[in-house]
Amino acid sequence: MPRFFMAGTNLLGGMAIMRGRDAEHVRVLRMRPGEELIICDGQGTDYKCRLVSSDKEQAEAEVIEVVKCPAEPSIKVTVLCGLPKGDRTDYIIQKCVEAGAYEIMFFMSDRCVAKPDKPEKKLERWQRIAEEAAKQSGRGIIPQVSWAGDFTQVLDIAVKKDLALFMYETGEREALNAVLDANANASTAAIITGPEGGFAQFEADMAKVCGLHICSMGERILRCETAPVVALTAAMYATGNLS
Amino acid sequence: MPRFFMAGTNLLGGMAIMRGRDAEHVRVLRMRPGEELIICDGQGTDYKCRLVSSDKEQAEAEVIEVVKCPAEPSIKVTVLCGLPKGDRTDYIIQKCVEAGAYEIMFFMSDRCVAKPDKPEKKLERWQRIAEEAAKQSGRGIIPQVSWAGDFTQVLDIAVKKDLALFMYETGEREALNAVLDANANASTAAIITGPEGGFAQFEADMAKVCGLHICSMGERILRCETAPVVALTAAMYATGNLS
Repeated sequence: MPRFFMAGTNLLGGMAIMRGRDAEHVRVLRMRPGEELIICDGQGTDYKCRLVSSDKEQAEAEVIEVVKCPAEPSIKVTVLCGLPKGDRTDYIIQKCVEAGAYEIMFFMSDRCVAKPDKPEKKLERWQRIAEEAAKQSGRGIIPQVSWAGDFTQVLDIAVKKDLALFMYETGEREALNAVLDANANASTAAIITGPEGGFAQFEADMAKVCGLHICSMGERILRCETAPVVALTAAMYATGNLS
Repeated sequence: MPRFFMAGTNLLGGMAIMRGRDAEHVRVLRMRPGEELIICDGQGTDYKCRLVSSDKEQAEAEVIEVVKCPAEPSIKVTVLCGLPKGDRTDYIIQKCVEAGAYEIMFFMSDRCVAKPDKPEKKLERWQRIAEEAAKQSGRGIIPQVSWAGDFTQVLDIAVKKDLALFMYETGEREALNAVLDANANASTAAIITGPEGGFAQFEADMAKVCGLHICSMGERILRCETAPVVALTAAMYATGNLS
């Protein structure tokens, strides 16, 4: 069923009035009166509607049912990634939105080779990717994509979550499944993954001092764009959000 | 550490003689005598070596240690995917190899829109992608990429595994985590995912009749190239292969 986030939409007495790009989108989809659609408020509530009319300017739909969006996970996971090169950011955003991330943040760390060129311009594009993925996968929110800054700011964000996981490839680490199983009731979590070259030892040391769980995902070396999706999927699985 | 699968390599009395593209690769990496490398036999055994000499024709390395490749999962998962459009195949292969697939197969199902154009030619390219991903992620085998044929052949392959999971988006399904937790000791598994348009109801019915587990991965709708990676990651997590 076509899904809209309430960009140009008003709800008035059981009717949804769609304008701007939402109305345009209804027209592009060639929807006919009587067909159903979902308008999501972006805060976890879905308005199931039936189209009444549609023209160039606006579309009107009757609200049939108001429900909690079933696709939102019980845990809010903030995915924090060392800025990778090229379009790997896009891939991370799209896949993490599908997999249930609450928000996605990029940051600079010691071994980042990518340069955060014109981040404001990129943020706009990144947010559009998140919105498309949210629509397509039936999410109840549009996960925010933002810029976390440098590594100390990342640690600052992470320590405020119920559970903070720092994915690291070497040295003394906890097994990801042991940590997740012991924290299956967390309502917020941070998952931190590195850029192409991984994290420097001093970054792992800092994370440990801050009380983060230094975690292993096994002996297979995951690419920097694969690791966040795999870790997030593990978190969703462990908290019962993949069934 | 650079990793090679034994394409043009012979092991003779504690020495590894590398020829052809392996020797070429050593040269391209500008490795110097004394540097270490791993030669994997592609069947789960790693030969840790120290380079002795390298020229245009061949490289010689001394075997220091022979170990079981630590990256191979305890469960052999065959990932079977309805043929998607364009380069989504490449993405599936690369990510599933990283995530620990034993082999990857594509097939035609009712709603496939992609046409299996010159599959022999594609198989060669697909296998190269698998090899690159296996090297990069430190795998002990190069997962085979192959063509499973049509949907009945897929069922035939799946029923021979200890555990056969059919990922489906609608109707009566088992929760993926319940099925995986109840079968954590399986040594072989099949994970079946659909093409862009998903599976037809009759295909799900056939899978059920054949005794496959019809599984849900929650309410988020995953793209056809995301679903196999997420399902495989869940299987790795549940069987203790992600820690």
